[in-house]
Amino acid sequence: MIVELISVGTELLMGNIVNTNAPYLSKQCACLGMKIYYQVTVGDNAKRLKETIQTALSRCDLVILTGGLGPTEDDLTKETTAQVLEKRLVCDPHTKERLCAYFQKRGETVITENNWKQAEIIEGCTVFDNENGTAPGLYLEEKGKKVLLLPGPPNELIPMMETKVYPFLASLTKQHLYSNMIKICGIGESKAETMIKDLIDTQSNPTIATYAKTGEVDIRITAMAKTKEEGERLLQPVKKELCQRFQENIFTDQEDIQLEDCVVRLLKEKGYTVTTAESCTGGLLAGRLLNVSGASAVFKEGHITYAEEAKKKYLGVLEETLATTSAVSEKTAEEMARGAAKLAKADVAVSVTGLAGPDGDGKNLVGTVFIGCCIHDKVTVKKYVFHGNRAKVRESAVQNALDLLRRCICS
Amino acid sequence: MIVELISVGTELLMGNIVNTNAPYLSKQCACLGMKIYYQVTVGDNAKRLKETIQTALSRCDLVILTGGLGPTEDDLTKETTAQVLEKRLVCDPHTKERLCAYFQKRGETVITENNWKQAEIIEGCTVFDNENGTAPGLYLEEKGKKVLLLPGPPNELIPMMETKVYPFLASLTKQHLYSNMIKICGIGESKAETMIKDLIDTQSNPTIATYAKTGEVDIRITAMAKTKEEGERLLQPVKKELCQRFQENIFTDQEDIQLEDCVVRLLKEKGYTVTTAESCTGGLLAGRLLNVSGASAVFKEGHITYAEEAKKKYLGVLEETLATTSAVSEKTAEEMARGAAKLAKADVAVSVTGLAGPDGDGKNLVGTVFIGCCIHDKVTVKKYVFHGNRAKVRESAVQNALDLLRRCICS
Repeated sequence: MIVELISVGTELLMGNIVNTNAPYLSKQCACLGMKIYYQVTVGDNAKRLKETIQTALSRCDLVILTGGLGPTEDDLTKETTAQVLEKRLVCDPHTKERLCAYFQKRGETVITENNWKQAEIIEGCTVFDNENGTAPGLYLEEKGKKVLLLPGPPNELIPMMETKVYPFLASLTKQHLYSNMIKICGIGESKAETMIKDLIDTQSNPTIATYAKTGEVDIRITAMAKTKEEGERLLQPVKKELCQRFQENIFTDQEDIQLEDCVVRLLKEKGYTVTTAESCTGGLLAGRLLNVSGASAVFKEGHITYAEEAKKKYLGVLEETLATTSAVSEKTAEEMARGAAKLAKADVAVSVTGLAGPDGDGKNLVGTVFIGCCIHDKVTVKKYVFHGNRAKVRESAVQNALDLLRRCICS
Repeated sequence: MIVELISVGTELLMGNIVNTNAPYLSKQCACLGMKIYYQVTVGDNAKRLKETIQTALSRCDLVILTGGLGPTEDDLTKETTAQVLEKRLVCDPHTKERLCAYFQKRGETVITENNWKQAEIIEGCTVFDNENGTAPGLYLEEKGKKVLLLPGPPNELIPMMETKVYPFLASLTKQHLYSNMIKICGIGESKAETMIKDLIDTQSNPTIATYAKTGEVDIRITAMAKTKEEGERLLQPVKKELCQRFQENIFTDQEDIQLEDCVVRLLKEKGYTVTTAESCTGGLLAGRLLNVSGASAVFKEGHITYAEEAKKKYLGVLEETLATTSAVSEKTAEEMARGAAKLAKADVAVSVTGLAGPDGDGKNLVGTVFIGCCIHDKVTVKKYVFHGNRAKVRESAVQNALDLLRRCICS
């Protein structure tokens, strides 16, 4: 099935917002085995929108339009689509009822007239309820063509897609894509690709693709199959092979698990508490760990010791260490980790000290970071040299601190 | 001048990468007073790319193509454009020389044959050197139409645009856009819009546009003018009016200044040191402050007191306070701020305690956050109820903590 995506909104043409809906929907379509040949962005202009829809209908099977479904005069997607398909707009009692409930829940008693426009649907269409806004999703087939209208705001579009539209579209296609993901840390993207180049070069079904993030490479294996069982049968041998090659560098095989989730789960399993002592990352490491809902079971306190005085006062870093090896050194990282564990009476402590830049210290390269991990008095310190600007160095340091923590807990 | 953007690349259609070039180039065009009616994304397919270029040429004055300028067989943009315009590709000695130097600098002695394709240009075109890759930018005019080809990787495209292409395009247009920005905190987007509705409703030149971020609204005033002086003359009265309406809610009138930059500057001006005591934000507030290069002059230490024990031990929060008013309360925030200032011997301390969710505490609404600011013993505490998921609540808390800090220092 050939799909064309049309994003509607003058704000996209002005460059005021980045179009994240297009890649999101493209990925969803790819998962459903659908092909996209064109993505078009057009403004809130009836004439140009009409031409864009007509062109799309002439060259694809399914047109997906996003945006322009709001209550204001600017919003023309529904009206224009109805016009192109020579359909009327009719009031949908179900949507109208939902609208009333929506406004009531938000305590809005005066509802301006234009909001009732949101209850109008294209005659004969299938309606997808919007749990996070007022514009429902609409789907209809006409003269052998399929048209799908979805709200523009990602916080409305994504939940609607995941819970309602995706299963519906899946029912329209025979072959589906099934995928698995493994996520690795500690190996860069180009090295990871080299390690599986033979698999990538000979791939057909399933396919293998790598996605690089800061300090992480995600590898997706995707199989095209008629049933879930067939999909699994195709995926499993490749996944097994990848696991053998990347071993302990893999921190999860779950798409929705982040590195901090994995670390908090490991800590819980061991019954360990953890604390942090941060210099250049200045709280971002603790902030990542506390992203995890329920992290309170393992994380009680953390400390940001940016100045040398603070490193000495709270963590017991020796004056001598700072004077001889400097604050950015293996010895300082070790003493920070040891001191932090003692201060917080925690089983595990992670320390970070480094030079995020842009200014140097005349001794270390900008980007040099030492990360220490202390577990029950045993301390591991690693030195890293990260590239990029201040924000990038700090982000890399946080990611690698979480990974070192994970490895030390597992070893 | 009407512009059409064509992004070329199958990876865009697969959703593997987000198209950030389109909004970037759209903004650049808007600054040059150029209008974009369509943005089209098409894959590495000669037939569809050809049709897309032809359609664009039929409905705009300038076609900008990005991507597909690499050395591999997939890369078809230059060849296809030349074909549509009925032009030949010719070797450009200048670009060939640059290519040799490029590979030499990188220590690559064996240069594969396909790389020399990068020295071929469309006959009669203007060449923009690429300082960060092998594909030069190309511009040509033919039959009254303008065509510009730019490399796809943002780290090649953006420097080329800023240093070479933008000035060139500016020379093609007579009217330019000049803009000013003010950034406000403490007022939501819809309230901010209501406060200047009369100005927005009657705007023509300059125009006013609002952009909402978490806990912040940026307002851009843009004037179309022939000279910088004329632009300033148009902008100044509107800016003055906005400043009068938003008063102390404005934290900067500089586009590249973030709220944390503003706070660190204020602290430096007053000669104050600052510390943080964070519960639900878990280090993210300190992390934001330390985004600012040179923050070490004002920030020495911060503490993450996630558990009640830590709040008592380090900050001296009273057992009684926690028992009677709970950890998420005005009293706890006040004691945290006072205790943090004392602990760190800092002039200023900011405390954050709240319920980021998803679980509640049976007492406060999820999203309830108390922020305290202590300056030389005088404590201000504010209560907030933020909406959204855990990450959003924490981000809102950090933004509002920085804003409260700013207001307390200024008052």
